Parts: sequence; C-alpha cells; structure tokens
Amino acid sequence: MQAYSSLFQILNQAIQEQQQSLDSSSPKEMYAPMNYIIGLGGKRVRPLLTLVGCDIFDCNPNDAIHAALAVELFHNFSLIHDDILDKAPLRRGNQTIHEKWGHNIALLSGDGMMVKAFEVLAHSNKNHITQLLQLFAKTGIEVCEGQQLDMNFETQDKVSVENYIHMITYKTAVLLGCSLQMGAICANASTKNQNHLYEFGKHVGIAFQILDDVLDVYADDEKFGKQVGGDIISNKKTFLLLDAFELANESQTKELNHLLYSTKISNQEKVKQVTDLYNTLGVKELAIKEANKHTDIALKHLEEIEANTIKKNNLKGFALQLLNREV
Amino acid sequence: MQAYSSLFQILNQAIQEQQQSLDSSSPKEMYAPMNYIIGLGGKRVRPLLTLVGCDIFDCNPNDAIHAALAVELFHNFSLIHDDILDKAPLRRGNQTIHEKWGHNIALLSGDGMMVKAFEVLAHSNKNHITQLLQLFAKTGIEVCEGQQLDMNFETQDKVSVENYIHMITYKTAVLLGCSLQMGAICANASTKNQNHLYEFGKHVGIAFQILDDVLDVYADDEKFGKQVGGDIISNKKTFLLLDAFELANESQTKELNHLLYSTKISNQEKVKQVTDLYNTLGVKELAIKEANKHTDIALKHLEEIEANTIKKNNLKGFALQLLNREV
Repeated sequence: MQAYSSLFQILNQAIQEQQQSLDSSSPKEMYAPMNYIIGLGGKRVRPLLTLVGCDIFDCNPNDAIHAALAVELFHNFSLIHDDILDKAPLRRGNQTIHEKWGHNIALLSGDGMMVKAFEVLAHSNKNHITQLLQLFAKTGIEVCEGQQLDMNFETQDKVSVENYIHMITYKTAVLLGCSLQMGAICANASTKNQNHLYEFGKHVGIAFQILDDVLDVYADDEKFGKQVGGDIISNKKTFLLLDAFELANESQTKELNHLLYSTKISNQEKVKQVTDLYNTLGVKELAIKEANKHTDIALKHLEEIEANTIKKNNLKGFALQLLNREV
Repeated sequence: MQAYSSLFQILNQAIQEQQQSLDSSSPKEMYAPMNYIIGLGGKRVRPLLTLVGCDIFDCNPNDAIHAALAVELFHNFSLIHDDILDKAPLRRGNQTIHEKWGHNIALLSGDGMMVKAFEVLAHSNKNHITQLLQLFAKTGIEVCEGQQLDMNFETQDKVSVENYIHMITYKTAVLLGCSLQMGAICANASTKNQNHLYEFGKHVGIAFQILDDVLDVYADDEKFGKQVGGDIISNKKTFLLLDAFELANESQTKELNHLLYSTKISNQEKVKQVTDLYNTLGVKELAIKEANKHTDIALKHLEEIEANTIKKNNLKGFALQLLNREV
C-alpha cells in the first residue's frame, strides 16, 4: 500500500538488521532456523501496524521500532511452535523448521525466538516499557490460551459459534490489537485512544479470521494458493461448520455427521456435498454478515480516535484491503 | 537454612498465591500442567537467591518478589521443555508433563509458563523494569543457547573441557547469577555490587554443575536418589568423561571408546570399568579441583561486595551448603 511505503522501508531495514544479528549469533543450530523463518517473509502486517499505531498520532515511527520487531519475533515464534503442534510439513510453501532441522531444534529455536522478542522489547524507551511489557505479555498468554482452545476443539463434541469467536479472538485477533496499541503507547497516546485502536485491531482480526474460513471453501482455486476445501477435508471446526451445526435440522445434522466421519466418501465428494449443505443453510452469507459486523465495530472504534484524519483514512483503507480478499 | 527462614516464608507465600492464580485460570488443559510442575517443589534456590540479592543490601525482600517469581516460572518452563527434549519420563520422581498430558500440552504449557514469567516481571517497580527485563531476557537466551550446545554435544566428536564449561555456564550457571542480580537491581545496588553478585552466583553455578557430574559417579547409592553411573551408561559428555579423554594415552583412549560404544558390556560392568579408568586418570580429583577453583572465584566476588557482613556470611554459608553434597 502506497501510503505505508515509508513505514515499510523503516520496518524492512530493521528486520534486515535483526536478521544480520541473528545470522552472526551462535550456536548456529538455534539461530539459523530463526533466520530462516523470518526470511520466509509474510506480509509483516503486525509490525507494520505497530509503526502505524505510532505514526497515526504524528509521532516518529522509529520510536516504535523495537515494539514492532518484538511483535514480529513473537509472531514467528508462534508459527514455529504451531507448526510442531499441527505437524505441518510446509510454511509459506517451504519446509517447516521441524521438518528441515528436526523437532528438538524447532522447539528450542522457537523458545529462543520468544525470549528474543522480549529482549528486543527491553530496548524500548524507559517511559513506555512497563506498559509495553504488560500488554505484550498479557497478549502473549492469550495467544497461547487461544492455541490451547483450538487444540481442545479437535476433541470437543460441542463447540458453539460463541466459543469459536472467543478462540479466534485469542489465537489471532488480540495480537493485531496489541500491535497497534504498542505503537500508540510509544506515541504517548491517551488511554482512550489506545483502547480504541486496540479494539479496532482486534475486531479487524476477528473479521479477517472468519473471512479466512469462508475463503477456504469458496475461494477461487487458482488465486487461493492452497487447496480449497482443506478445512472441510480435515473436519476443522470453522465458523461455517459450527454455524451449520447450529442451523441444521435433524436430518441435516445426520447428513453432516455422515459426511464428516464416513470413510467411504472421496475428499472431492466430501467437499462438494458439505459445500452444498453450507449453501442450503446459507452459512456463507451468515459468516460474511458476522465478519461485516466486526468490521463495522472496528471502524466505529477507529472513528472515535482523536488523530490525523488522513492517517486514520489510510488505516481504514489498509484494513479494508486486508479484509477485501475475493470471496 | 535457618538464616533464610523468613525469606522462604515470603517466597512460599508468593508461590502459593501464584499457584492459586494458575489454578483459577482457564483453559485448564494449559494451566493444570503449570501448576503441577510448580507443585512438584524443588529447592526453590533461584527465587530465594533473588530475595537474598535484595535483602543483602538491607532492602525489603518484598521489593524483589515479582523478579523472584519470574525466575521460578522461567526455571519451570525450562524444565518442561528440557524434559520434552530429553524424552524424560520422570521429574522429581513424578511423571513429566509430556508423559502425563502428551507432547502438545507440554509444549504449550511450557510456552505459556515462559510468557507468564515475563508477565509477572512486568509488575516490578517501574524504576527497575528496564534493567530487570534486559538482564532476564539476555539470560533467558543464554539458557536456550546452553541447551542447544548440550544437544550439540550429543553428536559432536570433539568436545573440550573448555566447551563444556561454556555450556554449563549458559545452561545452568547464568540463571543463578541473574537471580541474585535481579534482587540487587530491586535493591538499587550499585553496578559494581550487582556485577560481583552476578559473578558470585555464576561461579557457584559452575562449581555446582561440575560436582553434580562427580556425584553421578561417586555418590553414595542410597543417598543419591537416582541411579549412580547414569551419566556413564548414557555416554553423557560430563566433565569427568571429557577430562578423561583429554588425559588418556592412546591405549586408554581406545579402552574408553570401547567401553562407551561396545554393546557387549553390561551397564554394571561399564560403570565399573569406566569408573576404574576415571580413578586411574584422577579425573575425580581434577573435577573437584576445578569446582573448588570456581567456588574460590565466587567467594572472592562475594568479598568485594559492599553489604551487610552478617548477610554476606549467610550467603556464603548457603552457597557452601549447596555445594557441600557428600561426594
């Protein structure tokens, strides 16, 4: 996004320096995997938001650079360990760390990356560090809790849509809110402004995650970059599936359970039939409605923030661009 | 130890409150294992040292309680993940977390515990938090590096005694130094006093670890509480083994390698013959000499500290008691 090109420049420079520092650290067995996963890229949404959260109050985004790096390191730590938990072979089209270097190195380099996030944060301005650390650690714990809830869902019979929203809020959304608020803290923004910015980020995160579930089923195969219907094949408890169970009548529930647990149906047929049922129940539209609800809440919080109007509009544009992936 | 009974009282109270807080947190799947491992006890040496590091400068030990808890939480995180790495079935005579609840819960509750350590630390006095966080995070990274070095040793052909001292310094000793220094930071001690206290703790830690290797071979079976010779059986690269390789002549090296890698020798015979070789080479005495060297360095640092003499003597007594396990 054009409006953020100078922020991206600051960020990319800092990430590059961080990588150089990791690259020159030893033991290599622990640091090479850290460098590898950071080098896989990604959109850098979280650390960018930290710089935006500072810049929106007309403060120098460099003041938030340590917080931004901390957020990116923490995010990468969570990717390493989530991939172990999920036994995922690939991350952004490349081998995951545990696949490439083995389980123990993945575990330990993840640990090292998490501590590194806090070490980087420790170099923030002394006036902000207590608040930054309290928010960052609280959020980090919530992310772990969200991951645990997600794991619990795998074996839980009854999961409500409400439970699901709670899970994605912790697993994904709070880190977006935290990223923005950390920037605002570095800009000495008022508590009111900080809170609105946090809520904005959180609700954008919730909307994003719900739309991600929709995309997994309804995306254009070629544009999606991963297998459409993957969530259906793996019986993942997504917004769509949980909503479908809440809306289904007795025979539809029976059919859905049959599709989920039968070993006689091909994956292709399973995806087709579950999608048909989703269409009958209208869960796609309900998911989009729920995502829009959270987008609206987010934008209301953004409106409340006392900040540079142009910069608020830029943030609005950035969020809508994030959410406006073709469904 | 009598001199520290009131510090232990403060500490135990705080740990108990921490456990109550964990006990009332959810999801239970993540918090129950944390509570379990903290409940297994241990000597609580590290958090006690944090309180001692504050008290020795005649400051209220309560001022260091968050730092002390952070250290204990971090230590317990490292135990959870080390047990996964080592595939250890038992910890303090009880099932390890990954044995009791499975790998994924162990991984995640370890992560949660580590973030919790930083969250607790965030409640320290604002005047100290930057320094506390910088020291704590730096030490945390060193502990991970030490663990990685230890893992590397398993497949490394040549490990020098010097490499070994470096590894135990990071894996074990720096956290003892850090624990004490964090207390000193909370007491507003001078940088000079802080550094001497850190070095004291670090060298006590090195001595402790070397003596631990000696104990594993030469302890009284009944008093030791675990299998004597366990390190020999598992070919662990201890101070004794590495020193033996450095001192052995050609035929002794050959014999040692034979004992280590032959599948035809019983464990009992292996322990006996390796111990005989250790005795011939005098590595036990050399290890004790090396441990004493570090104890002496530690005590010299303690002498340099400008603090209450009685309290310095108490700390000396405590350290010597820690080290004076019957060999």
